[in-house]
Formats: sequence, C-alpha cells, structure tokens
Amino acid sequence: MLGLIDHIGVATRDIDHAIEILRKTGGIEVGRRGSVSAFQVEMVMVAAGGAPIELIQPTSPESPVAAFMEKRGEGVHHVAYRVDDLEAALRECRNQGLNLIDESPREGYGGSRVAFIHPKAMLGILTELVERPAGCDVPPYDPI
Amino acid sequence: MLGLIDHIGVATRDIDHAIEILRKTGGIEVGRRGSVSAFQVEMVMVAAGGAPIELIQPTSPESPVAAFMEKRGEGVHHVAYRVDDLEAALRECRNQGLNLIDESPREGYGGSRVAFIHPKAMLGILTELVERPAGCDVPPYDPI
Repeated sequence: MLGLIDHIGVATRDIDHAIEILRKTGGIEVGRRGSVSAFQVEMVMVAAGGAPIELIQPTSPESPVAAFMEKRGEGVHHVAYRVDDLEAALRECRNQGLNLIDESPREGYGGSRVAFIHPKAMLGILTELVERPAGCDVPPYDPI
Repeated sequence: MLGLIDHIGVATRDIDHAIEILRKTGGIEVGRRGSVSAFQVEMVMVAAGGAPIELIQPTSPESPVAAFMEKRGEGVHHVAYRVDDLEAALRECRNQGLNLIDESPREGYGGSRVAFIHPKAMLGILTELVERPAGCDVPPYDPI
C-alpha cells in the first residue's frame, strides 16, 4: 500500500531559521511558501538530501503543531508516503484495523489529497498518506 | 553533503510487535536481526514503502534508546542519510559549525561507518550520517 516517501514533516518554531540550518548541510532547493488554514500552519518544502523536508510552523497557539511542539519540541512531526489511490489505501487500512485520524481524504497543500493514520496505530509515527492527482501542484522537484 | 535517505530509525519496545504492525501496511521485507552493543540495542531493517525502517529495541534500561522512549515514547528516533565520504562530511559539518555527537566515525551495523549530528543542531532531528564501504553488509534491499 505504501509508496515512496513523499516527504518528512518537521515541526519548527521559525521556518526561516530552519532553512538557514538546512543550508549548512549543502545545496538545498527551497519551494514556495504556503499555508494550510485547517491546521493553522505555514509550510515550505525543502529538498535536502534524498527526501523533501516539509517545514511546518504554527501560525496560532491553537494549531495542532503548536501542541505537538509544546509536548515534544521541534523535530520530526510526521512521515508521509505517496499512494496512488487514497480511497483504496484507506479501505486497506480499515481492513487491517489501523486506527485512522481521517476516515476520508482531506484537501492537502497544492491540490494534493491526504489522510493521516493515528500515531498510536503506527509505532508512534504520525503517518500521512498523500495522493497527488495528475496536474496538482507538486513540490518544485521530483520527490524520491 | 547529504545523500539519499539511508533509513529512518524508529524506537520500539518490541521489535516483533512492530513488525506485525508494519505488515498491515502491505508487503514488507524483513532483514536480519542484529545488535549494536555500544548502544545496547537490537535492531532489524524492514523495507516498508519507499524507505527502510530500522526498528530499534533497547536491550538494557541503560541504552540511550530506552532513555529516549522514557521521554518521548515510541516513534521516529533518527533520520539517516547516506554519505560517500564520512570524514569529508564531518569536516564539512565542523566548517558549518554544526554540533556533532561523534567527532570521528564510529562502527555501525554490518560494516557501515556512522556518525551522529546533535539534534539541537538539526531542527530537533537526531541525524545519522552513514557511509557503506564497498563490500559492507548492506540491508537486504537497495535503499532509496
């Protein structure tokens, strides 16, 4: 069911500072800055090494990402896998008894469709499934 | 400096249970079980989706991975990037002022050579650099 890694989501208090740090690891490519109002976050995709990193900065103390950082600090927030057919992947998760946060697809950034598996069901990892329909606004580089 | 993602390290209390859960996400390939005495852990590589997951289970309460889980629970423990030349990568890190846990390479599992960058220097992510010399015991599949 899981495809390639689409990106690793990293919670940060300051996207600009995070980009500065990632620049220290060598050549990086920085995508367009965007926001997802449902999560009250700003985010940007950065190609650093082999997998895109999605930097996520809460824009409100009510953002679930702010709550995450209060508990666990900055760091890996989620791991996202590409899937071809999100509905089919969610059916498969239900068949396997995996506890879903999203029972049906929600709108992701740039025309993607996403759904999250509960971290308690997945070794403590908040796991995102991402479908990127043809023509949707993909990151400014080919994800691995 | 950073190459492809070599693997994502995931702390777990029970490797067998973790493998059972990963099986729910579809076809997985499970590598050989091994141990790293310096860290007091058992581990196994599992190909699940696009990136190998290294499941890590402490074998002693003194293991740094046990300390990690006491504080943060099960979940993503580190992200490992492949590098061609570990000494050169460490020099580059020092030039950039990145705080290293390992100033020089240490022996990793299966003949690999590894070094860690401090999570405080890398957005809260414990970052492993992995060099896999020719002929070393690589995971039972090609990493992405």
